[in-house]
Amino acid sequence: MTDNLNLTMLVDFYEFTMANGYFEKGFRNQIAYFDMFFRKVPDDGGFAIMMGVEQLVQYLQNLRFEQEDIDYLRGKKIFSEEFLDYLAKFQFSCDVWTIPEGTPIFPQEPIVTVRGPVIEAQFIETMILLTVNHQSLIATKANRIVRAAEGRAVMEFGSRRAQGYDGAMLGARAAYIAGCCGTACSISDRDYGIPALGTMAHSWVQLFDSEYDAFKAYAEIYPENCILLVDTYNVLKSGIPNAIRVFKEVLLPKGFRPKGVRIDSGDIAYLTKKMRRMLDDAGFCDCTITASNSLDEYIIRDTLMQGAKIDSFGVGERLITSRSEPVFGGVYKLAALEKNGEIVPRIKISENTTKITNPGFKQVYRLYSKESGEAVADVITLRGEEIDDSKPYEIFDPDHTWKRKKLTNFRAEKLMVPLFINGKCVYQCPDVHSVKQYCAEQIDKLWDEVKRFENPHKYYVDLSPKLWKMKEELLEQYSEGR
Amino acid sequence: MTDNLNLTMLVDFYEFTMANGYFEKGFRNQIAYFDMFFRKVPDDGGFAIMMGVEQLVQYLQNLRFEQEDIDYLRGKKIFSEEFLDYLAKFQFSCDVWTIPEGTPIFPQEPIVTVRGPVIEAQFIETMILLTVNHQSLIATKANRIVRAAEGRAVMEFGSRRAQGYDGAMLGARAAYIAGCCGTACSISDRDYGIPALGTMAHSWVQLFDSEYDAFKAYAEIYPENCILLVDTYNVLKSGIPNAIRVFKEVLLPKGFRPKGVRIDSGDIAYLTKKMRRMLDDAGFCDCTITASNSLDEYIIRDTLMQGAKIDSFGVGERLITSRSEPVFGGVYKLAALEKNGEIVPRIKISENTTKITNPGFKQVYRLYSKESGEAVADVITLRGEEIDDSKPYEIFDPDHTWKRKKLTNFRAEKLMVPLFINGKCVYQCPDVHSVKQYCAEQIDKLWDEVKRFENPHKYYVDLSPKLWKMKEELLEQYSEGR
Repeated sequence: MTDNLNLTMLVDFYEFTMANGYFEKGFRNQIAYFDMFFRKVPDDGGFAIMMGVEQLVQYLQNLRFEQEDIDYLRGKKIFSEEFLDYLAKFQFSCDVWTIPEGTPIFPQEPIVTVRGPVIEAQFIETMILLTVNHQSLIATKANRIVRAAEGRAVMEFGSRRAQGYDGAMLGARAAYIAGCCGTACSISDRDYGIPALGTMAHSWVQLFDSEYDAFKAYAEIYPENCILLVDTYNVLKSGIPNAIRVFKEVLLPKGFRPKGVRIDSGDIAYLTKKMRRMLDDAGFCDCTITASNSLDEYIIRDTLMQGAKIDSFGVGERLITSRSEPVFGGVYKLAALEKNGEIVPRIKISENTTKITNPGFKQVYRLYSKESGEAVADVITLRGEEIDDSKPYEIFDPDHTWKRKKLTNFRAEKLMVPLFINGKCVYQCPDVHSVKQYCAEQIDKLWDEVKRFENPHKYYVDLSPKLWKMKEELLEQYSEGR
Repeated sequence: MTDNLNLTMLVDFYEFTMANGYFEKGFRNQIAYFDMFFRKVPDDGGFAIMMGVEQLVQYLQNLRFEQEDIDYLRGKKIFSEEFLDYLAKFQFSCDVWTIPEGTPIFPQEPIVTVRGPVIEAQFIETMILLTVNHQSLIATKANRIVRAAEGRAVMEFGSRRAQGYDGAMLGARAAYIAGCCGTACSISDRDYGIPALGTMAHSWVQLFDSEYDAFKAYAEIYPENCILLVDTYNVLKSGIPNAIRVFKEVLLPKGFRPKGVRIDSGDIAYLTKKMRRMLDDAGFCDCTITASNSLDEYIIRDTLMQGAKIDSFGVGERLITSRSEPVFGGVYKLAALEKNGEIVPRIKISENTTKITNPGFKQVYRLYSKESGEAVADVITLRGEEIDDSKPYEIFDPDHTWKRKKLTNFRAEKLMVPLFINGKCVYQCPDVHSVKQYCAEQIDKLWDEVKRFENPHKYYVDLSPKLWKMKEELLEQYSEGR
């Protein structure tokens, strides 16, 4: 639904004041390089998942200023007519690279790189960050929840608690790609092909004179896909007995088996064990149990550890808002300028050393063990540097350079792919189902230790010797006093 | 921008399975009453702020099924052609009441009530909850932050970390109404008239050969509104000295005074005190100091307690996502059915007593002391009951009925207003600036004790004796075994 929206004006106002300034001060043709990267995985996890590339492509393809935008800006009385004229005729001309959707990503490495006239490359900051931050956040959270469910199905149920409309729609998309089996959100099914599913709310049960009547009516209409919500009154005294009665009276005579029951309240570890026993004793071993009700990865893990008998989970607000950590802190920083055809690196220093940026025009390599197939490390290089995986390669910790490791028998893959060249899209976005499969395959290649919920192993993200040296030299220059 | 979007399909799929079921089972003309209410104020605050009514009106006015929606549903092979035909010809016909935008709201009281054919009244659940939950969440959080700033300006700066596009746009609107003075988000200015403001990013400073050059260039272009970002390199050794030099060299000769400086990193309590001294000593007592960088109400309160010299705050991710509590848990529950022209109340019971619903078709009164003008209590009544404020009125705690209080010299106001009657909009949404003013006036009428951040006084939300008795009788019926 957001395919054809013109979101050009969804931009921090300072992008305009700066753009007008660059225009006025003769930087109109200044070529700049910007990187998006993030510093910390949400929930202190071991990896995040890249998401939002398809929406980024749509945004950049629709990038243009309408007359109402020009009029709006003119009304501010701070922009020159020449600049407004430039905006009216604006055509996007940057190069953009990203790590593809569904790829595990790690702190400090560039996940989007933009090269182009500084006015343009700066201008798209807000939407790049907004798009990738939001969707990567939800994908990362959804995958944690899916991992906690240990192979059981997880449905995304959070639309009603999402932070806005595309919070719901694009959140459902991100959750599906990251491992959920579907969503409750119909529009995400219609527009993105995310399978939508749903049965009944408590109000269905309340509308009828009794729970039995409500279940019977539902089973008569949907005998093939009969899932009953059993916690409106009392799960064990009324919900399950009524469900069993309806399964026997309505479904069996028609030749159907029940699909399942769902509970949305109470102690799900205790209740599902009792429910399972009752269903089994009645001959419905094949009737699944679905649980919902403020679930997240921690509650799912704990209830499963306590032997809860759950076949699938419906997860709402804590997934769709990433409740425990609702911010993905991606930033967009200047990395280089072109001067007389040369790439001149730029660095942003900070007293907080993790906030110091990696300068220059860069690529990211992922190194895989040929033996196990697992990802061993990422190495950030300068563009043009090739990692030759036919020879041994030594990686080292950029902060503690005495921590070194020589890799042999590995395979090196470039992670960043071109999205736009000279403002033209050169990337064909794969369909969501392919991205979902790719995402699962890539996560499979991570060590289990990286996938731990708490205190995971810190995956190596190292710098090439050349990039490391460039960064050190720039830091020296700054420390010499500026 | 969302004015004309058709969001009809932004709906949990179970609304369709239930709707088709109601249709099949002869409930097509069954009149039902649903209430939206919430159970807990985010961040354990003393009150929330109603928001999202304008977007609710737009949604309901655009409610219709397009051919692609019908085709999509037909593809599911579970809906009858009669039902699909009903959807194709669908016209909204419900009555809707809400508490107006900007009003302080409290747990348990209805904030939206819908009366109409159960298929319709049930169907709009997802969007009512999504819209009001999201926007009320952000308004409530923004107001906390504004209160912490104690009269200093607070700007909303969070677009890049928002959860989706309208998370940013509508979040900026909610924040403005709840007390922020503006936003960084240009599209919210263009579309909703929320004042947008912005100056420069660190990349502006990095683009130039020196910080001084960058400041000079900015001051030359924007002498009237010169706000400089002083923390790219070193605030006290470089940023402030360069800013002062540029103020003196560029602004003063042209007859302008500086507007301000901004810092976005470091210890803002320590730095702003030093900055203030340096600016004052240089003769720029009128130069304001703005601080940003992961602020929220707690950090703002603490830095001000430590004597930070800050004139205005830019607040981003922790406001636009309500980071400390990113979920507003509003629910939508069946409250009554019409049978033979009579309103028959329905109740949803639960072992968790706070989850028990208030039955029947209701109104909410707010009672104000005529002496102080302050809000004393809200009373939920059945429709048709009038609270006569010319006579004393006794309120009582619905859980501990011995806690009673007789009110005299008070004024009673109905909070819920009609939004739609028979599917037609009867409400003129006020402009955002009027809503902002109304919101401030209403919050002024709350006791300070209700506005405390931690452990606030619990505002009274009581039931009329008639409603209380109806609820007790329904609970009796259920406890007698069903």
